[in-house]
Amino acid sequence: MYLETISKLINPSDKKIVLLLLDGLGGLPVEPGGLTELETAQTPNMKKLAKEGALGQIIPVRPGITPGSGPAHLSLFGYDPLVYNVGRGVLSAAGVGLTVNPGDVAVRGNFCTLDENGLITDRRAGRIPNDVAIPLVEKLRSIQIEGVETEIAHLKEYRFTVVMRGKGLSYQIADTDPQQTGVPSLPVKATKPAAEKTAEYFQEWVNEAHKLLSDQPKANGLNLRGFATNPTFPQYEDIFGLKAACIAVYPMYRGVAKLVGMEVIEFTGESPSDEFMAAEKIWNDFNFFFIHIKKTDSKGEDGDFEGKVKIIESVDKALPELLSLNPDVLMITGDHSTPAVMKSHSWHPVPFLLWSQENSLPDTQSSFGERACAQGGLGTFLATEAVPLALAHAGKLNKFGA
Amino acid sequence: MYLETISKLINPSDKKIVLLLLDGLGGLPVEPGGLTELETAQTPNMKKLAKEGALGQIIPVRPGITPGSGPAHLSLFGYDPLVYNVGRGVLSAAGVGLTVNPGDVAVRGNFCTLDENGLITDRRAGRIPNDVAIPLVEKLRSIQIEGVETEIAHLKEYRFTVVMRGKGLSYQIADTDPQQTGVPSLPVKATKPAAEKTAEYFQEWVNEAHKLLSDQPKANGLNLRGFATNPTFPQYEDIFGLKAACIAVYPMYRGVAKLVGMEVIEFTGESPSDEFMAAEKIWNDFNFFFIHIKKTDSKGEDGDFEGKVKIIESVDKALPELLSLNPDVLMITGDHSTPAVMKSHSWHPVPFLLWSQENSLPDTQSSFGERACAQGGLGTFLATEAVPLALAHAGKLNKFGA
Repeated sequence: MYLETISKLINPSDKKIVLLLLDGLGGLPVEPGGLTELETAQTPNMKKLAKEGALGQIIPVRPGITPGSGPAHLSLFGYDPLVYNVGRGVLSAAGVGLTVNPGDVAVRGNFCTLDENGLITDRRAGRIPNDVAIPLVEKLRSIQIEGVETEIAHLKEYRFTVVMRGKGLSYQIADTDPQQTGVPSLPVKATKPAAEKTAEYFQEWVNEAHKLLSDQPKANGLNLRGFATNPTFPQYEDIFGLKAACIAVYPMYRGVAKLVGMEVIEFTGESPSDEFMAAEKIWNDFNFFFIHIKKTDSKGEDGDFEGKVKIIESVDKALPELLSLNPDVLMITGDHSTPAVMKSHSWHPVPFLLWSQENSLPDTQSSFGERACAQGGLGTFLATEAVPLALAHAGKLNKFGA
Repeated sequence: MYLETISKLINPSDKKIVLLLLDGLGGLPVEPGGLTELETAQTPNMKKLAKEGALGQIIPVRPGITPGSGPAHLSLFGYDPLVYNVGRGVLSAAGVGLTVNPGDVAVRGNFCTLDENGLITDRRAGRIPNDVAIPLVEKLRSIQIEGVETEIAHLKEYRFTVVMRGKGLSYQIADTDPQQTGVPSLPVKATKPAAEKTAEYFQEWVNEAHKLLSDQPKANGLNLRGFATNPTFPQYEDIFGLKAACIAVYPMYRGVAKLVGMEVIEFTGESPSDEFMAAEKIWNDFNFFFIHIKKTDSKGEDGDFEGKVKIIESVDKALPELLSLNPDVLMITGDHSTPAVMKSHSWHPVPFLLWSQENSLPDTQSSFGERACAQGGLGTFLATEAVPLALAHAGKLNKFGA
């Protein structure tokens, strides 16, 4: 209802909003009472913005929930992941950079093992590692089905994803995974008549795949689960009146941005400077810029506290290049926390900085860090509320009611 | 949707969570600018926990809503009382410690006055006080109905509750209260055929009751309202993967805990030490401990500011006994505020302390009180979000989405 309401208030303009997302930004101290990664980092530029702008902390999905990257980004983009529940196939595909357009069908695949009678002996093929699974996915890439186009990508261990594109496809197809061993895989079966042709295409694909895998010792079969199409998210331009660009190095984030209608920008290099330069090149063509910095999360996942500090500092150092573009509104935040001490995503609230040319809410904070943000004037709020706040500061929202 | 989502993420473990609930903990200063009860109390142990852990403040139901004990506890247990709307009869019964199991029927009763023709003259019997009503309830306790078992308990003033237990009962019965005077009470009437036998049992009970009351000067009749059965809350073990124990002296809190599937522990004594000792005895058999301290609320209701301070101090003094059990996560909070200056429950946010062995959010606070909690790192949040937060800190929640 919130999103619908915001959507009705949109007053488009060329005012430019930047969402600078440092993946997994939030952190924790190594020792109780110590400083977090962000608090440790020397960030004179962010500090200045914190002083001029307003701070707060965002809850990625709901209190206590540790989000994966998909839901965390959707949430920050404005879509409540508990409402916009994306099919497994689509997010998996987006996660590895496969585009799923409305009308395409995406599905998750699991390698399995079959005995001489074709009965499943292990539904996960002994959880084969990436280096075993990737060559198998490469084998399957050669499959061609007349009338449609298929694309395949490896996800992790025994899991992969397949996207089928063509005319008149439907995702209303049942899983082929029988959920037990000692039985054969189920045939690909439509659950609605409209999907019968699609089911035939997928059956043909499965048959070809089984031929190619038949002599493989580690995984000689597969099952397909979670047929889905693009959930057709309300698109950024329609719902927010924003012409949005995605500047991200990694396919996962480019995929999710594409789902909501952002245009994915091609550029070379992968440093913060390279990304800011990419923004500069297209500055006149867009009015929303999602700039994704991956390595804060990677260093956090590695448990590399100092490394994460350095990445944050490198972003801060390059920040003047972004500021020289003169954005009207700038958000600096993360999609979730990835504390180095936890080596994983976490549920903790994420520091949020909102700087704007005009009408910034004054607060008492003058540095950018977890403790400062917890005391910030914007308070603690849901990530889905960030973009509407930015829209308001950019003067893009009309009054609600008389 | 939040509860359902949390439920799907549960990763059970033996990590132990304690919810130490000081009933009506929140307070107000006597003089503007003064200290609250909690701020006045000398609480060195809580102070230490506040420094190591994180603070916040919880909204019991929604801003501005002053909750009764039933909804306030349900909310803190994780069940939004606006969604899990418990029948009047059931909560009333739970409130006085009567157990309502699925299949039992509970109903609220109101004493009334009837004229010589059996027409109602006062639907509330002049709001007779407790000391008049309690002997009447005792009279009704003698009623025996063949085929079922009934239990009765006085609630407050002219109100009481009846629970009927037996085979094939149904709660689908209309109120007997005609909602006006000058007319007789309505007969007990089933609204669904399945409840016809139950309605007969209750009619028989009402007839017996009227005989017993016929010579009573203050209340010679009664009406029954809000027939209900146990709403079968999602049980703690099913929804949170928690084996939960309730350590509480008063029947009300034991009743509400039972509704959500906690096991009510028998123990002797009623001091904080006695309760902590009860926890110690069962420490290995459970992984969630709801420990209820009643007297903070009682002193607040009495308007006894100093008395409430002393109760808080007595809990703090005993706290090391609880801490010696080495809980993984400890929450200290209240179900609502009962400021002594108000002599009643209130809607104010309630101080909340979350201490955890690992992964505590750092904040800037180092004492436990209303003002410190309002500045705490956890922010201001709904009481329903407390248990999910504790689950997250105990490592009992998987990641949401890929």
